Amino acid sequence: MKKIEHIGIAVKDLEKSNQLFASLFGNPHYKVEEVASEGVKTSFFKSGPNKIELLQATNPSSPIAKFIEKKGEGIHHIAFAVDDIVLEIKRLKKEGFIVLNEVPKKGADNKLVAFLHPKSTQGVLIELCQEIIR
Amino acid sequence: MKKIEHIGIAVKDLEKSNQLFASLFGNPHYKVEEVASEGVKTSFFKSGPNKIELLQATNPSSPIAKFIEKKGEGIHHIAFAVDDIVLEIKRLKKEGFIVLNEVPKKGADNKLVAFLHPKSTQGVLIELCQEIIR
Repeated sequence: MKKIEHIGIAVKDLEKSNQLFASLFGNPHYKVEEVASEGVKTSFFKSGPNKIELLQATNPSSPIAKFIEKKGEGIHHIAFAVDDIVLEIKRLKKEGFIVLNEVPKKGADNKLVAFLHPKSTQGVLIELCQEIIR
Repeated sequence: MKKIEHIGIAVKDLEKSNQLFASLFGNPHYKVEEVASEGVKTSFFKSGPNKIELLQATNPSSPIAKFIEKKGEGIHHIAFAVDDIVLEIKRLKKEGFIVLNEVPKKGADNKLVAFLHPKSTQGVLIELCQEIIR
């Protein structure tokens, strides 16, 4: 795991949160992206080598809507950058982690992603992500 | 804010969690430190330019004990590295954030730290930290 690629934060109102986090960082978000398959609209902020991803649900059955219903707004996941997501999934399965996506899927921000079940990581939802090289 | 300095994760059993996160990162923790004033024992892992800090309560009135009681184990806070914590506190107060430590205090890992109240940051506990230069 090369670095924290981003931290995902579940928010109710993306517009409002974009303003709040722009005040926090002293810089506005640099990108908005909708991931229809996940039922989310996202925005991204930079903090040096890392990013913050704000996530707003676009429908009530979105994982983000369910998360907010259960736990309220707040940190949703940590994403780590990896060089080879397929190899990393294999290694982590061998270590006993529950991998939610045995075949990595297309995520936001031009990434292949896979999640580890929080049950196997003491309550922390962890995402692995690998940049897609075109 | 220069980068994500670390992510703090509240755990019940530091020994057990050290093993789990060592499996996750493929590397063991490189440091253990007790911060008596906060009632926590911590361990640190590296992920490139970033760190993961595991926090275990050392007494029942520790903020970490209360967090786990309320929310269970999981991500507790995000810490951002800043160059000048005093200036940053001043800037953020002006922006309307609630700063819990108007005078920065000594934290783990040789840092001056200050926290922002999650009420003012949509449920996310944010720490600012500045390296202490000796």
